[in-house]
Amino acid sequence: MAHFKVNSKDIFFILKDQLKYGSLCNLERYRDLDEKTLDLLVNEAIGFAKGVLDPLNEIGEKIGLRYENGIVYCPPEFKSAYRQYGADGWIAAARDETYGGQGFPNMMRIVINDMMYGACQSFNMAPSLTHGAAHLIETFGTEALKNTYVPKMFGGTWTGTMCLTEPNAGSNLAAIETTAFPEGDHYKIKGSKIFISWGDHDLTENVIHLLLARIDGAPAGVKGISLFVVPKIRVNADGTLGAPNDVICTGIEEKLGLHASPTAQLSFGAHDECIGYLCGTANKGLAHMFQMMNAARINTGVSGMTLASTAYRNALAYTRDRRQGRDIAGRTAQEVPIIEHPDVRRMLIWMKAVVDGMRSMLYSGAFWSDLALELPDGDEKTHYRDLVDFFTPIIKAYCSDMGFRVCETAIQCLGGYGYCRDYPLEQYLRDAKIMSLYEGTNGIQSMDLMGRKMTIRDGACLRAFREEIEAFCQAHREHPALGDRVRALAGVASRLWETSAEMVALRQKDPLQWASYTYPALLAFSDVTMAWRLLDMALIAYEDSLKKGKKYDFHRGKVLQATFFVDTTLPHTLANIETCLRTGREIVDMPDGGF
Amino acid sequence: MAHFKVNSKDIFFILKDQLKYGSLCNLERYRDLDEKTLDLLVNEAIGFAKGVLDPLNEIGEKIGLRYENGIVYCPPEFKSAYRQYGADGWIAAARDETYGGQGFPNMMRIVINDMMYGACQSFNMAPSLTHGAAHLIETFGTEALKNTYVPKMFGGTWTGTMCLTEPNAGSNLAAIETTAFPEGDHYKIKGSKIFISWGDHDLTENVIHLLLARIDGAPAGVKGISLFVVPKIRVNADGTLGAPNDVICTGIEEKLGLHASPTAQLSFGAHDECIGYLCGTANKGLAHMFQMMNAARINTGVSGMTLASTAYRNALAYTRDRRQGRDIAGRTAQEVPIIEHPDVRRMLIWMKAVVDGMRSMLYSGAFWSDLALELPDGDEKTHYRDLVDFFTPIIKAYCSDMGFRVCETAIQCLGGYGYCRDYPLEQYLRDAKIMSLYEGTNGIQSMDLMGRKMTIRDGACLRAFREEIEAFCQAHREHPALGDRVRALAGVASRLWETSAEMVALRQKDPLQWASYTYPALLAFSDVTMAWRLLDMALIAYEDSLKKGKKYDFHRGKVLQATFFVDTTLPHTLANIETCLRTGREIVDMPDGGF
Repeated sequence: MAHFKVNSKDIFFILKDQLKYGSLCNLERYRDLDEKTLDLLVNEAIGFAKGVLDPLNEIGEKIGLRYENGIVYCPPEFKSAYRQYGADGWIAAARDETYGGQGFPNMMRIVINDMMYGACQSFNMAPSLTHGAAHLIETFGTEALKNTYVPKMFGGTWTGTMCLTEPNAGSNLAAIETTAFPEGDHYKIKGSKIFISWGDHDLTENVIHLLLARIDGAPAGVKGISLFVVPKIRVNADGTLGAPNDVICTGIEEKLGLHASPTAQLSFGAHDECIGYLCGTANKGLAHMFQMMNAARINTGVSGMTLASTAYRNALAYTRDRRQGRDIAGRTAQEVPIIEHPDVRRMLIWMKAVVDGMRSMLYSGAFWSDLALELPDGDEKTHYRDLVDFFTPIIKAYCSDMGFRVCETAIQCLGGYGYCRDYPLEQYLRDAKIMSLYEGTNGIQSMDLMGRKMTIRDGACLRAFREEIEAFCQAHREHPALGDRVRALAGVASRLWETSAEMVALRQKDPLQWASYTYPALLAFSDVTMAWRLLDMALIAYEDSLKKGKKYDFHRGKVLQATFFVDTTLPHTLANIETCLRTGREIVDMPDGGF
Repeated sequence: MAHFKVNSKDIFFILKDQLKYGSLCNLERYRDLDEKTLDLLVNEAIGFAKGVLDPLNEIGEKIGLRYENGIVYCPPEFKSAYRQYGADGWIAAARDETYGGQGFPNMMRIVINDMMYGACQSFNMAPSLTHGAAHLIETFGTEALKNTYVPKMFGGTWTGTMCLTEPNAGSNLAAIETTAFPEGDHYKIKGSKIFISWGDHDLTENVIHLLLARIDGAPAGVKGISLFVVPKIRVNADGTLGAPNDVICTGIEEKLGLHASPTAQLSFGAHDECIGYLCGTANKGLAHMFQMMNAARINTGVSGMTLASTAYRNALAYTRDRRQGRDIAGRTAQEVPIIEHPDVRRMLIWMKAVVDGMRSMLYSGAFWSDLALELPDGDEKTHYRDLVDFFTPIIKAYCSDMGFRVCETAIQCLGGYGYCRDYPLEQYLRDAKIMSLYEGTNGIQSMDLMGRKMTIRDGACLRAFREEIEAFCQAHREHPALGDRVRALAGVASRLWETSAEMVALRQKDPLQWASYTYPALLAFSDVTMAWRLLDMALIAYEDSLKKGKKYDFHRGKVLQATFFVDTTLPHTLANIETCLRTGREIVDMPDGGF
């Protein structure tokens, strides 16, 4: 059954009206492209997601995975879909053509992933991780590594993983114990990894692990971690497959959701026969891996947002269809579709605003990432790099927490039916829950935002964000209809800058108290970002929203969602800001016997 | 594996220190009881829950239900547990001895259900529904009905259900179409019911359905609904079982959770052979059924709270055990248990406060219900009845929404492991989600609170609640340590009374706008209730909390949870109150094409 729902008008409004994404084609690197080609790609991605990936979502849930004698078996439909996904160029759409990419801007990868994750979260983790792993080799590997691995990964012949976590090294990568022993031109790898998404499967013949390990004798902590390329099956000089590489899948997790995405426990070198190749500089592995980790954090935000998006649209379709109860204002004597009940509409408009705001946040960040990569060196390029760095933990944490919350609210719209497997919502909820947990828990994101991101480059990241918000508020504070909301945003933002400065100082003086309230601070930054993006869309839609006729209901929706969100959210944002600097020390002081 | 966790000190602190529940033994009806006997019952309930029900939770999840040829098969362990549950007197602990009850106060049923639902939600729905169904017969049935059915149901020989929902009559019971045709001393029943919890199973030989139907020719709407007793198997005059009664289970739902609780579709009288007995007065069925529905709403709150409670304590145990990462303040060089990380402690203290506050709210309501039932007629009795009526939608909606939120937060404390089936948290989360949906969605609860409950008996319910809050604030506003929080509560409460009065007026003038914001109003009433209950406990614990020694850490915990909750919650409460009266009409005005 078709479950994945998306309104392409919402997508294109952000891309074209809000961001003018065609302007990316003015960048030197993309001058052979034009906006029409980008539009075409978006529409093709929607078509592929609906046609090929959406059916997998139900199949994956019903059939699931089978682990037997060290091998993970996936539903057969996944295998053919993966081949097609690779052959059609989706894995490396945003990579250079040198190793098989399609040459589109980085931003398009986010738009494509929006569609693909929305249609089947479990499945799309495979190509997305493969892209990240191959791009790590492309960025840091030797010519030989690049030629051997990247084209086969970009083309869908092999997949890739990121192997970080170990039983005693989850959030704390400093504790990694997997070891690499030098041997000729390669290393012998020995250790165990857990929670490896798509760590083993039968979609492709080979799996290429991008793995963090310590070279024997390396310094303790994060400064002794290196990055390795470790294939499941060894690759001969001519590119054909050789012998198995002593990488054993020892089991997969049973999970709340993502039932078609294998989460593997992997053993490397149990028989001392696992070889790996250093990728990049020795002892710089964690820094290299951050390229993939940051991309994964953004993709986690995309996943949370897009599951919320399809959940919202499924709830919307249900509430338009289901008749139950009388109109509370007596406008008709008949039973009405439940979308007519104000409490249901309250949930719908909230979901609409949150989904649209998150999508705008994500696409904006993606747009800036292209500017950060492709603009000539200078202040503007630096500005966008700083913005992207600042946005990453906000996107990861907010879109995952709110993605889940939207799925929950969508279920609420269906009443008891929302609890039943007849509808896709309960699966969306289960799949969405992982987002706040992996790629660094949301608590860790909040410490990254309020810690490192506040201080690196002397606070340049926050400055870049602040400049954007202040320029926006300055430009629109006198708008006849939306000016009061813009001023409200300016007021809250100003309180947030003050609070952030005090928190930076608090971090030095009283780190325990500081760390007690980084999460509400992250929420406050998220709310400000959302209000900004939603008001920006509302301002663009405003003129059209005044025109008569159903044609302009779409624009009225953009204005109404913004005023609703700003008015009902910013008071809570202020409450969260107030919380950040409270002097009560309950969190620190609670004795163990008090819990 | 043992998963159910409860701290009996928390339970007894509310029962004895806060509520002085032994005073119930001063009531005429319970004069043969004493506090020691009540204490014993609580401890026995904890023991039974841990010993008999807790193991069922994992069994039920793993084995689940099997539907085959119209029969639902449960895990065999459920059958013996049900027999023991009945034999040990748990079903009717709080019912008179006439039909097999144990004669304990009504309040004890809530405390028992706290333990039993916490240990196995799926299972405990069966005896809990059986109690409600039998008590309906006990209250409204003829002597013959009472003698035939009640003792067998109280004793665990047969189970009972409540049959309300139909495919086109979910939230709107006015649309019920099941029909009862008079025939001698009974009726012939014809119709279909869905979403019937424990509607069919093999735990017992008979299932007694308490069913809403229309007597042929009855008025339309809720005024034409009657209550019937409809056994699955007919019962002979001597109490033995006769022929099947043409009640067919046509299927069960596949659901997000509650995998061991059958949610049945039932067909009554498909072959015109289903007989039923009128219970109570014709056309007064809905009013009669409200006795069971109100109890079910309270029990839904109990379920949400107790799943949150065991989820919190499981998260607590994990965070004390799991070592990961360095201490942020450098108090030790070793890796620390993650409970030492402030962001984890923030989640723990919030969960602790929410669970303890909800439990106090529930036990307080239960205590008042005994006063409402057993005090001699007069103002005091009326006061408690009004309080209980007012509390019901708050308990149902708040404890279900927050119960789910606590389960979510507990998962967050475990990081990636929270997503895995190795821990019970993901099941708690799935089981808890139903609570906001059934027994009237939480949106419906908010309309009940801000609609009917504000106006019946000329606003007496709100008045009773207001008197309690104001008396409390008056008594403690000058407390040396907690007075500022008491005054903060008084300030928020005062805003809430004003807003409520305006909403009562708005309901007449502009019902659509009123219904747009009943839910934030319910949240505000819930927060005020929570702050009150938590501060009340803190005031009781305060003197002890000042004493030195680990022994008093428990009391310090009560004070710290209260100040933390009040300070970080009431600003949001004010934001919600502000939202209730906003003049923006986005919810009403959003055009269909705007969604």
